[in-house]
Parts: sequence; structure tokens; C-alpha cells
Amino acid sequence: MTQALALQQLSSALPPDRLISKEFAKRPYETDGLTAYREVPWLVALPRNTNEVRQILRICNECSVPVVTRGAGTGLSGGARPLKEGLLLVLSRMKRILEVDFDACTATVEPGVTNLSISQEVQPYGLYYAPDPSSQIACSIGGNVAENSGGVHCLKYGLTLHNVTGLVVQTIDGDELVLGGKSYESPGLDLLPLITGSEGLLGVVTQVTVKLLPQPTNQAVLLGAFDSIESAGNCVSAIIATGIIPAALEMMDSLAIKASEEFAHCGYPIDAEAILLCELDGTKTTLDQDLVRIREVLDDYDVKDFQIATDAESRELLWRGRKSAFPAAGRIATDYYCMDGTIPRKHIGYVLRTIKELGESYGLGVANVFHAGDGNLHPLILYDASKPDEIERSEQFGMDILNLCVKVGGTVTGEHGIGVEKLDAACSQFTDHELEQFFRVKQAFDRQGIMNPGKAIPTLTRCSELGGMHVHNGEVPFPEIPRF
Amino acid sequence: MTQALALQQLSSALPPDRLISKEFAKRPYETDGLTAYREVPWLVALPRNTNEVRQILRICNECSVPVVTRGAGTGLSGGARPLKEGLLLVLSRMKRILEVDFDACTATVEPGVTNLSISQEVQPYGLYYAPDPSSQIACSIGGNVAENSGGVHCLKYGLTLHNVTGLVVQTIDGDELVLGGKSYESPGLDLLPLITGSEGLLGVVTQVTVKLLPQPTNQAVLLGAFDSIESAGNCVSAIIATGIIPAALEMMDSLAIKASEEFAHCGYPIDAEAILLCELDGTKTTLDQDLVRIREVLDDYDVKDFQIATDAESRELLWRGRKSAFPAAGRIATDYYCMDGTIPRKHIGYVLRTIKELGESYGLGVANVFHAGDGNLHPLILYDASKPDEIERSEQFGMDILNLCVKVGGTVTGEHGIGVEKLDAACSQFTDHELEQFFRVKQAFDRQGIMNPGKAIPTLTRCSELGGMHVHNGEVPFPEIPRF
Repeated sequence: MTQALALQQLSSALPPDRLISKEFAKRPYETDGLTAYREVPWLVALPRNTNEVRQILRICNECSVPVVTRGAGTGLSGGARPLKEGLLLVLSRMKRILEVDFDACTATVEPGVTNLSISQEVQPYGLYYAPDPSSQIACSIGGNVAENSGGVHCLKYGLTLHNVTGLVVQTIDGDELVLGGKSYESPGLDLLPLITGSEGLLGVVTQVTVKLLPQPTNQAVLLGAFDSIESAGNCVSAIIATGIIPAALEMMDSLAIKASEEFAHCGYPIDAEAILLCELDGTKTTLDQDLVRIREVLDDYDVKDFQIATDAESRELLWRGRKSAFPAAGRIATDYYCMDGTIPRKHIGYVLRTIKELGESYGLGVANVFHAGDGNLHPLILYDASKPDEIERSEQFGMDILNLCVKVGGTVTGEHGIGVEKLDAACSQFTDHELEQFFRVKQAFDRQGIMNPGKAIPTLTRCSELGGMHVHNGEVPFPEIPRF
Repeated sequence: MTQALALQQLSSALPPDRLISKEFAKRPYETDGLTAYREVPWLVALPRNTNEVRQILRICNECSVPVVTRGAGTGLSGGARPLKEGLLLVLSRMKRILEVDFDACTATVEPGVTNLSISQEVQPYGLYYAPDPSSQIACSIGGNVAENSGGVHCLKYGLTLHNVTGLVVQTIDGDELVLGGKSYESPGLDLLPLITGSEGLLGVVTQVTVKLLPQPTNQAVLLGAFDSIESAGNCVSAIIATGIIPAALEMMDSLAIKASEEFAHCGYPIDAEAILLCELDGTKTTLDQDLVRIREVLDDYDVKDFQIATDAESRELLWRGRKSAFPAAGRIATDYYCMDGTIPRKHIGYVLRTIKELGESYGLGVANVFHAGDGNLHPLILYDASKPDEIERSEQFGMDILNLCVKVGGTVTGEHGIGVEKLDAACSQFTDHELEQFFRVKQAFDRQGIMNPGKAIPTLTRCSELGGMHVHNGEVPFPEIPRF
């Protein structure tokens, strides 16, 4: 009845092509990038402008219909998974670039604009938008804001949070909040970074102002190959300790190297236990100095093979393997599960070794390819969904990895968000007090609790059913893993 | 009765030297850096550790006694002004440096540690903490977090927000929130930047983890003198547009130049209408290239005098004038009122000219010395408190300046916060919806509304009494100032 009333009101408030209610037409929206979870929504709405978004929110609020907001649907933690009793608010049609301000070096865009198209728009003017998720050709800036997305170059240039200066947000009550602007000064309570990464729980972003940066004038990519994961991991910390901030600092382990080389033929040393890929940018002279310094550090950590690429073609070749790592993993296993956790850099060696041991105990392979400079791991757990219990084992293995991250002082997500995937893992991250505070803040935006309900914040009941694991930084005993 | 009960409970819960109730002993706490407003608090509490802070908050919450938190009391917007019916929670005794982590490049400290002492602690290791408010010798890191403080070097290195990676916060309910850690990845709702700059309205910060940066290896300071404020203002935008990010980019106008030169004898050209001070840092070769490029830009904007300082002594000499600007202003007028607003850089020329005209119409002098690279103005309104109505006129003038900032797309504060000083000005910054949302978020942390009540967020009643000025970016008509 409530849904019937909502449908009637929505149909009369919106132009005819904005709603999808037929089963077959809703099917493409049943999942986001976390494809293991599927649910066909009650209704799909595709507004074309802010006013339509506000109408939709107002009606859903009045009729108490849950709202799940979706951008391009590339998210990997299920944040945009629909609810069968809810409306799926799809913002992909709101894709205008509203303004490029060359004085302020900002672009103001609608949420459905893809990440890459911002850089393409301003490329002729020597500018670009720095955060670059792997899905940047498809993912939308609204989704990037919702998940506080990262990418290869976030080590030097920051996450989405650090590159957004203004947001226009619609609340479920139908109010508009204008947060920030073309610079990041923010008087009053700073709601902009609170909305960033809030996974659709607090409001709907209808306009985003991002920082634009001048394109780097010179770039170089180094590849260093190591005989041991520990040496490569320790070398990461040593590079950062020089004070040089690489534009990117990525690491791949043996399995990832072999798979990528076989797939992309990029000249990676297939006998190495680990490689580091380090991109530097800056003026020609700075670059030359930094290359010398980093070469010295690599030598200190017994680098056994070293390549350097300065021209565009050879740089692209070295990156090609890294960028192919995910499809390459798809060729060595029928299925893989991409995890996302963050740890202090100094524990990279220990954590990778422990992950390998865990994989052996689960009887599952794992390839590691990740943002080492940030300590942001992406273990790819290899499994075969057609075999009984391999999905369950891979999920349990993934959970162990995330708990290990928390244990060494890290977090259960680096850039993919909590969504539905990591609700259990989040129980080991937060205390009861912190979860309660999250819910109180959510309630301050969404009194009925109908904005993306059941995502991002685990309930206390859920956490207690997992054994009351409300602890910080490793205070819960994990018998199989030594304490820090 | 409630206060009596609270005093009784506090006295028995805390060691003997933690409370000050005698009138003469409370007097030093009657004001913070906004000395025009004074109020002796009901009680002063000086806890020595987190546990004592929690006891105090718990008792105040139970007895419904308002709590105003104070660091060093150097704040300029009255955020730590006491309430005569409230407890003043002074954190200056909590001043231990708890840990320096050289792997993570962080320092974890108690809130009463002064800003400068963090850098002093790690100076032997070639590190420092970047944000540098003018009051850094005295102001505490807890206060910096509460106000999201800035400083001369925040152009390149960011505000407090960008240099804090972890906070431990005590809520009025007696709960502890651990937000972030030694890196800035934050799963769940990102409460860390919400707490930062929240002016004591949401909780009490009892531990702060800050980023440490390697000290710059080479530095240079340029001085460029101009015949017109507009040329200097436009030159600021042009410098930023080169893509070079100066470590600092400051501007002073004619009155500030003369006063500082007379006070500090630093070699400033006293016949200039405006000077820019630009600090660069980096490797020797980058520095040389940047200096050439910036010299070209200065020439494009008709710089008429140019000085460059590379050795420590001559750099210090050029900075000495800028750093003496506030005491120097104190010699050309018996009193001055330091304003703080932020505008888009491209409007610097127009805004400074309009401020000058406003000053003439008020019959008050004004000296400008400010963070031009950030567009963060600090007009010093010169007046004589002994003359009838000059205080009122200077406050009205200040209000006009802040409204002008909002009008051109800026904000009413850059780094000093709203406190009590800018409650009226904040009415022209925020809509009703935004203010309501602020109050709802506050309530999510502080149900009784006893954490620093009456500060930072203007009530709707207050705003409507000021003429319903709930507008954004200049939509309210100001007859005397052209629209943007």
C-alpha cells in the first residue's frame, strides 16, 4: 500500500521515462560490482536533474520507502546493492560538466559524470583530476564521493576526499545542503568530509566540485625486482622515509607477476618474488635527482633487477602489466575475490607472508597486487565457484585477512568502502560506542533510517553475534596470528 | 542546586588541585584571545589525564552543567569564552608527547602540547609539524584541532585538518571515540574531519596524532613590490596558475608595509602600495627554476622592486617584517580588530579596494596583511577604544567585510573559527536548512546541548533578527556593493 502510493505519486511527479518497474528491465540493476549479492529492486528511478532527485526523495520519505543510490554500479563492496522493497536511485543520467573555472582550477560536475571524462574534458588545457580508481573509465564521480575512492596516484595526490572542494547534497527531508565551494575553507561544522565516504547513508550528492591539477611535465617509472617479499615490503617504507613522495608506489607478488607477464608481455622478471613499480613526476632535474636517490634505496634492500622507463611508450609498457593484473588473475583461476584492507607500511612483509600461510591452510591461492605506498592491500583470493564450499572458504579467508589488517593497526577498507561485504569485518574495527555514534550521526540526517539501510554500519546485534569482537588494534585474541 | 551537586561530585571524584572556584583565581580565565568579551566561569577544571576528563564530562552531563573546553586561550573568535553558569575545562596540563613514530612519520600527543613544541621535539631528526599559526609558541594542538587552525605555510602543506591523522575524543556521555590512527584511511563515517574545526561543540579531544614532514632542504624568499593593490592581487592568481605551489604567499598593503618597516627595519619598500612575500622550498635545482619562473610572472604584473633571499639570515630578515605586522599595527593605533575571512583569489584586488573605501566611510583606518595564496584576508581595523562608539563602528565595519567575503563567493572565516565573534556573520553564510542540519549533527553528539552552547552555530532566531539573511554567495542585496 505504501509502495503503491509512492508509485502513484512518483508517476505523476516525474516525466514518463524516469521510472522502471518491469521485472526484465530492472534486472540489469540487480547488483553492483560485488556480483555475489543480487536483489532486484522494487523500482528503479533515473532522474535527469536535481529537482527530480528532490521530488523522488520527498515522496520516498513521505511513504517510508527505502532509497539506495547508485552511480555507475562499479563499487566492489555492495554499497549500491538494491533492496527488493526499495527504490534504486540511479544518477547515471545526470552527467553534465557544469563549469570549469580556470582561475580556481576546479570543475563543477553532476554526479553521473565518469571519473575519466573530467580529465578528458580539461586535458587540452594541461589539467587533470588526480584520483584514478581502476574503474575510472566507467565509475562516476558521485560514486567516488560516496566511497571516498582511491587509485594508483592517491599516494601523492590524495583520495577523493582530498580532491573535492564542494558538494551539493539533497537530504531525505528534501532539503539542500551546499557544502564547501571552489576552495576547501569551511566555516561551521565541516559536513563535506562527513558526506564523502558515507556510502549513501546520509544524503544524495547532486553536484561535485573537484580540484584540477596541472599535468606533470616529466615522469619516470622504475621497476625493482626482489628475491623476497620482506625486502620489497621494507623497501617501501625506506622509499617513503627519504621524503620523496612517489606519484605511485605499487607492489606485486610472484603469482601476480607471472600472471600479468603472461597476459601483457611487459617484460616483468617472472622469477622475482616481488616487484615494486615506482612512478615519479616533477621537473626534469628533480626527477633525475630522485631517481638516483631511489636507486640507492633499492640497492640497500638488495634489488636484483632494475628497469627504468622515462619515455611515454616504455612507461606505458611497465604499467601495462600492473593494469592487467585483475584480468590476468581471471586467467589463472575461474574466480577471484578482490579484498581491500590497509595496514601500516612497516608490516607489509609480515602481513603478506601471513596471508600466504593462511591461503595454504585454506587450500586457496592468492595473488597480491596493491598500493604499497599507502599500505593499501588488494589480495586476490583465487577460487572456483563450481566447487562445493570454495565460495564460503574464500569469504572466510577474506575475513581473516581483514581481521589481520585491524590486528596490525590497519583498517578493513582502503578505498572500496564497507558496503554489505565488510559489515562483519567492521565489527572488529569499531567499538560499541563508535557504532552508536555512527548511528546517531546517521539519524541526524535520516530520521526514519531509509537511506541505504543495512549498509556500511554493522548493528551491535550483528557484532555481538560474531562474538563481541568490538576491539581496537588487535586487542581481540586471534590464536593463529601473533600479537602486535 | 544542580551546580552544587556537580561541585560536590567533582570535588570527590578528582584529586584536590584540579578545581578552581575562588573568584580571584578564576579571573585569568575570563576570556580567550577575543578580549572584548569577558565572563568569569562558574568553575575551572584542570584535569591531568583522560580519565579525569571523562569523570568531569560524566558529572557535568548528569548535572546538566554546560562545558566550555579551552586549550591555551589564544583563539581569536571567542570559542573558549567561558559561561558564567558553566564549567571551563582547561586542557593545558595535559601536555605530554606520547609517541613519535619514525616509520609512520607521526607524533601522538596530548591536547595541551603547544604547536611549536611538536616541531621542537622532532627537529633533531629532521622533521617538523607544518601548520604554523602566528600564536604557535603558545597555542595548543587541541585548540588547533578545535579551530582547524591555519598559518603562513598552510598554502602548500594544508590546514590542521590535512595534518591530523588520528584523534581520541571523549563525548559528553562519557564514551571514547578513536578516530583514524597513524594514517588517514577511515572506514565507516568519517568523524575525524567533522570533529576537526567543531569548536568544542561535539566532544573533547584528549589525544592527537599529527603527520610529521621532513624539513625542507632549500628555501628562498622573494619580495615583490607593486604600485597598485590590483596588480599585486592579480599576480597572486598568476603565480598559483603556474602550477608552482609556494610554501607561503603573503601580501601586505601600504599601511602594513610602513608600520612593519618602522617597527622591524627589514628593508621593505615603504613607498609601495603592496608587497608580496613568496617562500619557495624544494631541491636546489627546482628552487632555481621556480625562482626564474616566478620572477617572470612578477614582471608580467609590473613589479617595481624585487628582492630575493636564499641564506637563512636574509630570509629571516624579510619574514621579520611580516611577523611583526601585528605588534607594528599596535604602534600606529591604540587598538586594532583582526578580521578573518576568505575569498577567491581573483577578487583580492577588488575586495581590498572596497575595504579601503568602507574604511573611509567609517572614518577608520585599516591595514591588510594576509595569506594571499589562500585568499585568506586578515584586515586589521584600527580604532581607539577610548573614543565613543569606535568599538561599535569597528565591529560594524568588520561585519561589512565578512559579508563582502560571502558576497564574492568566500566565507566568514579562514582559520579563526566562528566562536561568538562571527555568529551574526555566519547568518549570511548558511541557509536555514544548513543551520538545522548543523544542530541535528550537534545533537547526535550532545543531546542536552551543553557542549560549548551558544557558539559556532547561529540560531535561526538570531539570523532572522538580522533580517533573514539566509543566502548563499551574494544573493542578499547589499546596495553599497556591486553583485558578482
